[in-house]
Amino acid sequence: MRSRIERVIVTLVKERIDAFLITKAANVRYLSGYSGEDAILFITHKRRFFITDSRYALQARKDTKGFTVKIIKSTLTETVRDLARALKVRRLGFECNDLTHAQHERLVRTLPGTEIVPVSDIIEKLRQIKDAGEIRLIRRSVSILERSLIRFKTMLMPGLTERDLAAELEHFIKASGGEKSSFDIIVASGSNSAFPHARPTNRRIKSNDMVLLDLGVECEGYNSDLTRVFFLGKINPRTKKIYGIVKEANRRSIKAIRPGVEIFKIDEIARGFIRKRGFGAYFGHALGHGIGLEVHESPSISGRNHTVLKPGMVFTIEPAVYLPGRGGIRIEDMVLVTKKGCEVLTDGIYK
Amino acid sequence: MRSRIERVIVTLVKERIDAFLITKAANVRYLSGYSGEDAILFITHKRRFFITDSRYALQARKDTKGFTVKIIKSTLTETVRDLARALKVRRLGFECNDLTHAQHERLVRTLPGTEIVPVSDIIEKLRQIKDAGEIRLIRRSVSILERSLIRFKTMLMPGLTERDLAAELEHFIKASGGEKSSFDIIVASGSNSAFPHARPTNRRIKSNDMVLLDLGVECEGYNSDLTRVFFLGKINPRTKKIYGIVKEANRRSIKAIRPGVEIFKIDEIARGFIRKRGFGAYFGHALGHGIGLEVHESPSISGRNHTVLKPGMVFTIEPAVYLPGRGGIRIEDMVLVTKKGCEVLTDGIYK
Repeated sequence: MRSRIERVIVTLVKERIDAFLITKAANVRYLSGYSGEDAILFITHKRRFFITDSRYALQARKDTKGFTVKIIKSTLTETVRDLARALKVRRLGFECNDLTHAQHERLVRTLPGTEIVPVSDIIEKLRQIKDAGEIRLIRRSVSILERSLIRFKTMLMPGLTERDLAAELEHFIKASGGEKSSFDIIVASGSNSAFPHARPTNRRIKSNDMVLLDLGVECEGYNSDLTRVFFLGKINPRTKKIYGIVKEANRRSIKAIRPGVEIFKIDEIARGFIRKRGFGAYFGHALGHGIGLEVHESPSISGRNHTVLKPGMVFTIEPAVYLPGRGGIRIEDMVLVTKKGCEVLTDGIYK
Repeated sequence: MRSRIERVIVTLVKERIDAFLITKAANVRYLSGYSGEDAILFITHKRRFFITDSRYALQARKDTKGFTVKIIKSTLTETVRDLARALKVRRLGFECNDLTHAQHERLVRTLPGTEIVPVSDIIEKLRQIKDAGEIRLIRRSVSILERSLIRFKTMLMPGLTERDLAAELEHFIKASGGEKSSFDIIVASGSNSAFPHARPTNRRIKSNDMVLLDLGVECEGYNSDLTRVFFLGKINPRTKKIYGIVKEANRRSIKAIRPGVEIFKIDEIARGFIRKRGFGAYFGHALGHGIGLEVHESPSISGRNHTVLKPGMVFTIEPAVYLPGRGGIRIEDMVLVTKKGCEVLTDGIYK
């Protein structure tokens, strides 16, 4: 935690920012270790404050090290104002991708003598590169995910509803040591799978159905994310063909991942392949997303991202083809960029 | 839905706002019925647009009535700009409690000829007063909550961990027709209950423990919220005394709820009573919160809210006393303001 904050301070000094207000929950957790809600950090070049309300006072004092805990007496803005005045802050940075317009206005009004400076992506960029401890937690999350998929396979048979399956999986994750599922579990059978973000319905699984499962596990704040499509009985030849195309798109883009490559090229490999096979119009979303303390975080694996891959980045690769009214195929893996290429963290799980 | 939008338009006309950008998910759902993510509304005095990306295109066309669905081609801001230009919007309202500072800046930059007007609380105020359909869903949610508590009581015995109990409840809620729990279930035993927002740990329930359960159920988007404290075996006399004080504070404030009363007075009844009994320093949070599409919504039942109670408001009443290192007592109910007083929606549930 200490070295993370020190790297944030390097940027603050460079940008001549005296103090930085950190409001985004995942960033608060990344820098302080605090896993609760409704807390913000106030960091100067020399001091660290942790601001929360009375509901979290006990947890804050227990969880955070190296921070001075301040409990909000009247309003958050007034607490920040008092600190900024006491520490003679002239330029105060804030997270402009998190603070709302109204909160920003309140800050400006309450601190008339202070310059309020929008800051973006400092911490998000640090978070792109996972350290050993983070990778360990992600691996643990993937291992619970893998066991959950085995459990799913044993349950998957005609008669159960999508909701039954999702509820059972949620329960299994908690019983297996995961905190919870990283997001609402997607179990989409038959034509429901054509909705990229389907929610489980009361539709019963039928023989010869295809069933798409999109699942993640949260483990000490770190997430995993995986999609697989299962077939009960016969596979329709057209579906089989599409499955092959999506799988090959997944394989090809993963093969190209290594440090130094620009991200939009990875997206284009999968997208170009699907396009060439005639299904380009049915793959509308980005190829993947960074994952860690948030399920979707930087870097986005999209055709517009010119960021260069670096060792320690962890993200998903999830090409797909959705045919409205018929069904969708998505094959999603998680990769870790290594020194020479990448490691597929979800390799070997039903693919 | 139609009449809700018409009431929003009345305010727009009054404020001379030509179009209103609605970005907050609960408000999007309230006005359109759409229950997915990543969608916004663009409403003029005459037309209604639903803007989302390709992942939700199918669901949007299925779920929303009376809206023209626009799928984002490049960026959201550009989609909004194109609409605003085509419809000759001069004053564009936005939700300043939802849009981030950076999003607002982007909007201002992309629409140089348009006045961008901060709007707050129009929809939140409408949502304070629940209609018959909403009350029906809240009642359904409470009835699943009640069954979950009965289940909890049958499971509650020494040996199980807090996590076991929470996982089993989550599963039970889904098996009983609830969508999911409204928030991370709190099962806090012994001194863990002193954390107002405790998370379930691996601590095993012991004989003579006290166990605090804070639980909510989501049902077609609508939420419930209830806290009870259970005692296994003997109750320590001091705890019993505090329990009695909190229960009486709950009873007294509920008794005072009726249309026309200012909210801060309700808060003061409970707080004043707890203060007089010598535990004022151990009750730090507001007395309650509105509940509906969000677990915490307007009105806040706090000492600073001068809003007047109206029939149709639904909120929680949850006085508490937390003694650090020892334990906490919170007794939370949900009430519906009626024409002459209030109905306790959670009455009779283990109290």
